[in-house]
Amino acid sequence: MIALNSRIFQGDLQDQDHSDHQSPLGVTRTETVTLSGIRTQSGFTFEQVEVNYQTLGTLSPARDNAILVCHALSGDAHVAGLHPETGRPGWWDFHVGPGKAVDTDNFFVVCANVLGGCSGTTGPASNHPGSGRRYGMNFPELTVRDMVHVQVKLIDHLGISQLFAVIGGSMGGMQALVWATDLPERVKLCLPIATCISHSAMQIGFNEIGRRAIITDPNWNGGDYPLDRRPRHGLAVARMVGHVTYLSEYAMTHKFGRQRSERKSDNALPVFSVESYLHHQGRSFVKRFDPNSYLYLTRAVDQFDLFENGTSETILSRVKARFLVISFASDWLYPPAQSRELVRKLKRANISVTYVNLDTPYGHDSFLIENPAFSDIVSHFLGNENRQGAFIKNDELEAAVV
Amino acid sequence: MIALNSRIFQGDLQDQDHSDHQSPLGVTRTETVTLSGIRTQSGFTFEQVEVNYQTLGTLSPARDNAILVCHALSGDAHVAGLHPETGRPGWWDFHVGPGKAVDTDNFFVVCANVLGGCSGTTGPASNHPGSGRRYGMNFPELTVRDMVHVQVKLIDHLGISQLFAVIGGSMGGMQALVWATDLPERVKLCLPIATCISHSAMQIGFNEIGRRAIITDPNWNGGDYPLDRRPRHGLAVARMVGHVTYLSEYAMTHKFGRQRSERKSDNALPVFSVESYLHHQGRSFVKRFDPNSYLYLTRAVDQFDLFENGTSETILSRVKARFLVISFASDWLYPPAQSRELVRKLKRANISVTYVNLDTPYGHDSFLIENPAFSDIVSHFLGNENRQGAFIKNDELEAAVV
Repeated sequence: MIALNSRIFQGDLQDQDHSDHQSPLGVTRTETVTLSGIRTQSGFTFEQVEVNYQTLGTLSPARDNAILVCHALSGDAHVAGLHPETGRPGWWDFHVGPGKAVDTDNFFVVCANVLGGCSGTTGPASNHPGSGRRYGMNFPELTVRDMVHVQVKLIDHLGISQLFAVIGGSMGGMQALVWATDLPERVKLCLPIATCISHSAMQIGFNEIGRRAIITDPNWNGGDYPLDRRPRHGLAVARMVGHVTYLSEYAMTHKFGRQRSERKSDNALPVFSVESYLHHQGRSFVKRFDPNSYLYLTRAVDQFDLFENGTSETILSRVKARFLVISFASDWLYPPAQSRELVRKLKRANISVTYVNLDTPYGHDSFLIENPAFSDIVSHFLGNENRQGAFIKNDELEAAVV
Repeated sequence: MIALNSRIFQGDLQDQDHSDHQSPLGVTRTETVTLSGIRTQSGFTFEQVEVNYQTLGTLSPARDNAILVCHALSGDAHVAGLHPETGRPGWWDFHVGPGKAVDTDNFFVVCANVLGGCSGTTGPASNHPGSGRRYGMNFPELTVRDMVHVQVKLIDHLGISQLFAVIGGSMGGMQALVWATDLPERVKLCLPIATCISHSAMQIGFNEIGRRAIITDPNWNGGDYPLDRRPRHGLAVARMVGHVTYLSEYAMTHKFGRQRSERKSDNALPVFSVESYLHHQGRSFVKRFDPNSYLYLTRAVDQFDLFENGTSETILSRVKARFLVISFASDWLYPPAQSRELVRKLKRANISVTYVNLDTPYGHDSFLIENPAFSDIVSHFLGNENRQGAFIKNDELEAAVV
């Protein structure tokens, strides 16, 4: 069990004060490319799609050292380093940088905001090129495969024919799985983390609570809200649900327990610190996230089914990538059983897979948090493959494998 | 592991169609008594409190066979039998009745809607006797001990000096614990089920999400809403949160999995059955529950601390009751670890306690659901005590003890 650092939780890096945060990458920037000819699974063709992305490190002359990092529900292209305007560190600054798990001294790292997102890539809050009005709920039905399709066009644009690796947690892990199964020639290593083949009823249920909170907020107005009258209460409730499910009971007990906050509730009772924390997370999220985007992205992950287009045997028989699958023992939202289900299917298809269930106490948030064991395992998997073309088989890793 | 019956979930009995439901008790009624001189922990004195309650079975001439059943958050006094108007079975009809775990052939069963509730007992939706206006958020601060205080007055009114047993699950278990610790002379047996000494940060967090959904619903209006413009959307979201946390991942997977509903979502996508189920539960709850009452009751359980008035050693040294503590292995909202914490403290205080952790797949809802093992254990505990003054020690029970 890794010791609990009370500072670091999902959202803390993105939504808290981080004026003292340092990053070995210093300030990093994102850029935007306009792509055309993107057609969704549902048959909608975008005249153009803006894609906001970040690259870190240097593409090798052979163009064979690119790692695509896929972000989760509330992430963006700003994966590591400090944001030029806000000073905010990237959402995976712990794991991406010189000498880190995804080592920018060796690898060319690409991270793009997903289609349907709200951080620079075309999504429901973007203007429709023709009308000048925002898409809102006229944005087409969105799937995880649509997100990957846009990533493929970006990787094409960057002149990369094969990714050395694709890595992501949660919704990002779903994207990694789609890359490895739908584009077998284009991925050498696949690292799905704290993810699943498809959502369970419980995962769908929690997402639907958040959507319901947004949709029943009168400000939602069928998705057509002015920017200064967004359904912020509904989105804040949705984010609060997210936060509780991202944490573990252990982590919440150790971070908050039954501590009281200085604030009073609406009926003048002192509130618990955990309540203040959740309110703060809700408020912070509302400032940076589009409610319609939240609806589209949660629908996309709920609808996701890795094997929707055939049997798992047929689909996996095409796969060429080798896998490192990671789950976290305390993750009850994406429980290890879901990762083991994936691993069993990969093994049955004779795909090379290493599986690690890390005994961290942080719940689903574990994939976003500083963790030497996680860093070692990922960097060894990426590094040893690079040097020897073989999987790491040292004692440390074996000991960690459950 | 007890086989899953897909029909029965919390709320199903109370909120679903139950036209075909039979009860050996037939139609049962509640009655109302007006009590005066009720003073809350916070120092507020009610001129009068109406208490809605139900009695089943016959009080023995010695008045020594009374069992008080305490309901949970969304329960009421209608514990068993069929409601005279709606035909709805009582919330514990599975467990209370002739020949059942709480056997109305042997025991005089009392169940009262709690103070602060909205099913016949004085609560925020009741009229203030002086003004004729509803209390709303002017209802005084409410605690679990206040609920018990009203129960004590009711038991006094019924001429019962000592309860044979007090039993309840979840919030009802907290009431049972208060009876045994604050009123040691008045309880012979205490059966706290799926409950805890105090809420964890996670339990508080989930409740706060529900409260936030209600309070940010514009119809809430500081708690002052007309009955035809209640914050129904907020309350429905709160109930949806409740439902997901009452179930287990296993139960949700087996009941719903990734089945689709015939309905379409707001963005015209087919929705999953679990979404339709949660919507239905939200809508049904809104018809029968007062949003302000939801705020008060969830605050009361969040604030609850069995040992708020002293050390556990001092408080438990006074206890005379013997205990049967029951938890459920799949209950992640009130996890078995919380019951074990209680059991350890009881044992350290040399209190007679039997602890059973039942391996049901239903999550927190397990205490509301038909379950022969649960029935056997409870009826043996109550019945053997009655016959022999000794705890049941048969193989079946030992086998179930974890």
